[in-house]
Amino acid sequence: MATAQKLATGTNGVAVDQLLATVDAVKGTPSIAKFTFRIRNQWDTGSRNCSTVTTFSGANQQLSHPKPFTLEADEPAILLGKDLAANPVEYLLHALASCVTTSMVYHASVRGIQIEQIESSFEGDLDLHGFLDLNPDIRKGYQRIRVRFKIRANVPDEQLQEIVALGTGHSPVFDSLTTGVPVSVTAERL
Amino acid sequence: MATAQKLATGTNGVAVDQLLATVDAVKGTPSIAKFTFRIRNQWDTGSRNCSTVTTFSGANQQLSHPKPFTLEADEPAILLGKDLAANPVEYLLHALASCVTTSMVYHASVRGIQIEQIESSFEGDLDLHGFLDLNPDIRKGYQRIRVRFKIRANVPDEQLQEIVALGTGHSPVFDSLTTGVPVSVTAERL
Repeated sequence: MATAQKLATGTNGVAVDQLLATVDAVKGTPSIAKFTFRIRNQWDTGSRNCSTVTTFSGANQQLSHPKPFTLEADEPAILLGKDLAANPVEYLLHALASCVTTSMVYHASVRGIQIEQIESSFEGDLDLHGFLDLNPDIRKGYQRIRVRFKIRANVPDEQLQEIVALGTGHSPVFDSLTTGVPVSVTAERL
Repeated sequence: MATAQKLATGTNGVAVDQLLATVDAVKGTPSIAKFTFRIRNQWDTGSRNCSTVTTFSGANQQLSHPKPFTLEADEPAILLGKDLAANPVEYLLHALASCVTTSMVYHASVRGIQIEQIESSFEGDLDLHGFLDLNPDIRKGYQRIRVRFKIRANVPDEQLQEIVALGTGHSPVFDSLTTGVPVSVTAERL
């Protein structure tokens, strides 16, 4: 096992030894598996607002990113914005793409599968009849999302599907978005 | 109606006259309400990948952002990354925050509700027992998300809740994430 760990270290840029050590650590101390991620958002005007990503909790610690990340949002002109940043539903596709990709890479790496290249396209269909309250039978959210992965790896064709299934089968965003998440909301005066 | 529209134009930075014109246009030509948003993602190494947001379709047109937006993703060191960008589940919170906020502002503006300031915090709980395949009863995605809005507006307290409900009740990302979206995935060789 020690040898297998050593060989696998660094596969696809993933510190597999550290990943396996994390699995062992969680088995010993289950509470370190609990993470809370957070952002703060500030409205600017119209369709423009901005999130700041600074701290998170995990492994029984309060943790910080080395510097805060700033994520802007806007809408294109056809949706009444100034088109200064990606819009929220585009960010949702990025969250999904990045999560499935990273989950795929981590789980392939643990299995010793070397991947050379991954490209993907994600697209989602929306019908504004929902958002505009013009038809109660049309949902406000994405009706469907289509994902297309292209992968370069020295594996048989059928294993390509397995590699992608490692991503979709483990991705927190894929699970959140396909199954749904309970969201509680409070409002108070500023 | 013309006067009401004129008065409302520019409320909260939203071109309400244009929004009402869009509603009328969709009533006349339902197909213009159909939009498809898309991103392309490219894996770099380990937990690092990057999405490009360039084109979208809507109102029976192929449309482009004035310049492509680039969205990076990484993981913090404790999750084996280099912490060079927000991680996918943080992007998911930003997608949700930005969408609920914009939806709230648009729908409040149409109703003539003037909002001075909106701040919000979004946090979500994850348990890595899911992602690490250590417990099949623990989901891989967010277990719950807590949202806290703070709003400055010259309205009675009870209307604060209504304003936030305009956001959650119309937001495409809120609907997608709370109800779930069907996602189809294909894989091919690059």
